Amino acid sequence: MSELRKDLITREWVIIATERSKRPEDFHPHGEHNEARPEYVQSCPFCRGNEHMVPLPLTSFPPTEMRSTAQEWLVQVVPNKFAALSWQQPLDRRDIGIYDWMRGTGHHEVIIETPLHNQSLADLSVEHIHWVIQAYIDRYRALREDSRLKYIMIFKNYGRIAGASLDHSHSQLIAAPFIPQQVWHQVKGSEQYFEYRDCCPMCDILTVEQQTGERLILNAGTFQAVAPYMSRYPYEVWLIPQRHVASFASMTPEEVLALSGSLQEVLRRLAILLHDPPYNLMIHTSFCQDEDNRLFHWHIQIVPRLSVAAGFELGTGVFINMVSPEDAARHLREGPLAGGTSSSSG
Amino acid sequence: MSELRKDLITREWVIIATERSKRPEDFHPHGEHNEARPEYVQSCPFCRGNEHMVPLPLTSFPPTEMRSTAQEWLVQVVPNKFAALSWQQPLDRRDIGIYDWMRGTGHHEVIIETPLHNQSLADLSVEHIHWVIQAYIDRYRALREDSRLKYIMIFKNYGRIAGASLDHSHSQLIAAPFIPQQVWHQVKGSEQYFEYRDCCPMCDILTVEQQTGERLILNAGTFQAVAPYMSRYPYEVWLIPQRHVASFASMTPEEVLALSGSLQEVLRRLAILLHDPPYNLMIHTSFCQDEDNRLFHWHIQIVPRLSVAAGFELGTGVFINMVSPEDAARHLREGPLAGGTSSSSG
Repeated sequence: MSELRKDLITREWVIIATERSKRPEDFHPHGEHNEARPEYVQSCPFCRGNEHMVPLPLTSFPPTEMRSTAQEWLVQVVPNKFAALSWQQPLDRRDIGIYDWMRGTGHHEVIIETPLHNQSLADLSVEHIHWVIQAYIDRYRALREDSRLKYIMIFKNYGRIAGASLDHSHSQLIAAPFIPQQVWHQVKGSEQYFEYRDCCPMCDILTVEQQTGERLILNAGTFQAVAPYMSRYPYEVWLIPQRHVASFASMTPEEVLALSGSLQEVLRRLAILLHDPPYNLMIHTSFCQDEDNRLFHWHIQIVPRLSVAAGFELGTGVFINMVSPEDAARHLREGPLAGGTSSSSG
Repeated sequence: MSELRKDLITREWVIIATERSKRPEDFHPHGEHNEARPEYVQSCPFCRGNEHMVPLPLTSFPPTEMRSTAQEWLVQVVPNKFAALSWQQPLDRRDIGIYDWMRGTGHHEVIIETPLHNQSLADLSVEHIHWVIQAYIDRYRALREDSRLKYIMIFKNYGRIAGASLDHSHSQLIAAPFIPQQVWHQVKGSEQYFEYRDCCPMCDILTVEQQTGERLILNAGTFQAVAPYMSRYPYEVWLIPQRHVASFASMTPEEVLALSGSLQEVLRRLAILLHDPPYNLMIHTSFCQDEDNRLFHWHIQIVPRLSVAAGFELGTGVFINMVSPEDAARHLREGPLAGGTSSSSG
C-alpha cells in the first residue's frame, strides 16, 4: 500500500509507492562517467589550454592576487556561448494580442569547476569545491546589483540524462528578468506556513529531522543533509544551512567551507551508492529584491535522475517516488562510507 | 536572441530559444517502436489470449451487447497490478508531527487500447480510437460518483523515454483523494483570466489561433489542434474542443467521434514528422466536484519527449524550448501529410 505525503511548503502531495521499489543496486549505472577519461581533450572548450575556445572569463579562482606565479585557475566563469538569455539588446515587453511577450534578456553563465577533463565535482578537494561555491557567490553578488534582474538560479546538470550537453564538469547560472511562479509558490508557501505555525518550515524540518534521525544523512552542524519527508525523486537530498537566512549569498566564509565539506561528502556517497548517477543540483534562494525576506530559508536540492517523469507527473505535478526517503537516508548514511563523518543517529 | 512568453493561465514564463534550434529531422528517432513487432507476445499481459495474466476487466469495448458472437474486445480496462494508489484499506489521514500523511487510497487502472501487440494508438482506425475514448469516459463517469475521489487524471506514456514500462499500447487512469496543486493553479488561473477579461482563456486562444493561423495545426471544427503560444516542449500540441465545457466526460457522441478523428490525425503527423517519437498525452479536465465550473475549458495536451528537463527546469519550473511553436505548427501542418484534412490557413 502506498502513502501520500504533503509538501509543507508547496502543499503538493507526493505518492511514495515502494511496492515497485528498487534497491540501490537495481538502479543501473549509466556508465557514461565510469569510463577512463583523459585529463585533457583537444576539442573540449572547458579544458585548460583551450581558453581561446570560450569567451573571456568573467572571474576566476583562486583570485589572481592569491596565486603564485606558476599557479593557474582552478575555477573559471565564462558567458554561455549558447545563452538561453542574453543582454545584447535592451529589455522589451509587449502585449501581442492576448499574449504577453518579453525579449529574452538576462545572463547565462557557465562555471567551469575544474581545468581537468576527468574530474567530477565529487572528485575535487574540499578547498577546490570551496572555490566553486565562491565563484557562485561572486557572480551572484555581481548580478544582483542590476535591478532589472529578478531571479538568479544556479544549477548543475551532471550526465547526459540530467541534461548536460558537455562532459567537462561545470555548473550554470541563469539570471532572469522575472520571478518564476514556482519560486513565488515556494516563498508564499513558506510565508503561509510561518503565519500558521510561527516558525519557518525549514527550521521546523531541521528540528524534527535532528530529533528522529530517520531521514538524516549527514549532520555536520553548519549544514544538515536530509532525505526530505516529501521527496519527489528517489534519493533526493536537501542540504539545509542551520542558520535561517533567505539568500545563499549571505554565507560567511566559514559557512562556505562547511558547505564544501558537506557537499563533497553527499556527492561522494551518492556516487558510490548509486554508481555515479546523473543528477541535477539546484540552489534555492530568495529572489534578488527579497534577500532580506525573514521567512525564506535557502537550501540546496540534489536530484539523482533515476526515474522518468511520465504523463501523470507532467499532467498533475504529483510525483510517484518508488524509494521511501527513510530507506534512501539509511542507505546513504550506512552505505559503503558508513562510519565516516556522519554523526547521525540511525 | 531568445524570447520569453507568458502562459496566460498559469502565469509561468517560457523561454523560446531557437538559436540552438533543431530541425525536425535532427531529433533522432528512438527506434524502439520502429522495429517489426509480432501481433502476439506470449509474455505480454495485454495481448489477446493472455487475459488470465491481468485482473478481471472493469469494462471492455465494444459493449458485449453490440458484438457479434465471434467478435472479441478491442479495448479493455483492468486494474493496474502495480497500482500507485489502491483502495484495499479505508481512507486515513494523519498529522505526523509537522507532516501531513494520507494512506495511498484511490484507483489506478490500465486502458488496453488494442488486443494486438504491434499496434500503436496512431495505427488504430477512427472507430477503434472512439472505443478507447469511450472507455476513458466510461471509467471516469463510474469513478467520479465516489465523493472520496477528488481528481482523476487520464494519461498515456508512449515509449520508454516517456515512462512506459510495457510496450503494448495502453493508457492509464489514476483517481486520487486530493486535488493536485498544479490543477488548482490551472483552475484558479483560468478564473483570474476570466475576471480580468470576461472571457475564458481557452476560448480566447481558439479565437486568436483561428484568426492568425500561424500556430494552427488542424481545425476540424469540433476540435482545434494548436501549437500553444507558450509551448514548454518542442512540438507540444493542444487539442481543444470548440465547445466551452469543464469536463471531458460531458462530450456528446458526435464530439467523441470528432475527437477520435482529430487525435488520429495529430498522432499520425507527429509519428511521421518526428519518426515515431516517445510522447505523453494528458487529459486536463476539471476536478470531480467541480464539473459544472463555468470557467474551466477541458483539453488534451500531447508532449513529444524530445528534450530533457534539466536543473533549470526542475529548479524554477521555467522551460527552455528550442523549437518555436510557429515552426512546430508549420512542420506539422505542411509536413509529409500536407494537403490532408487540415483546413488551416498558413
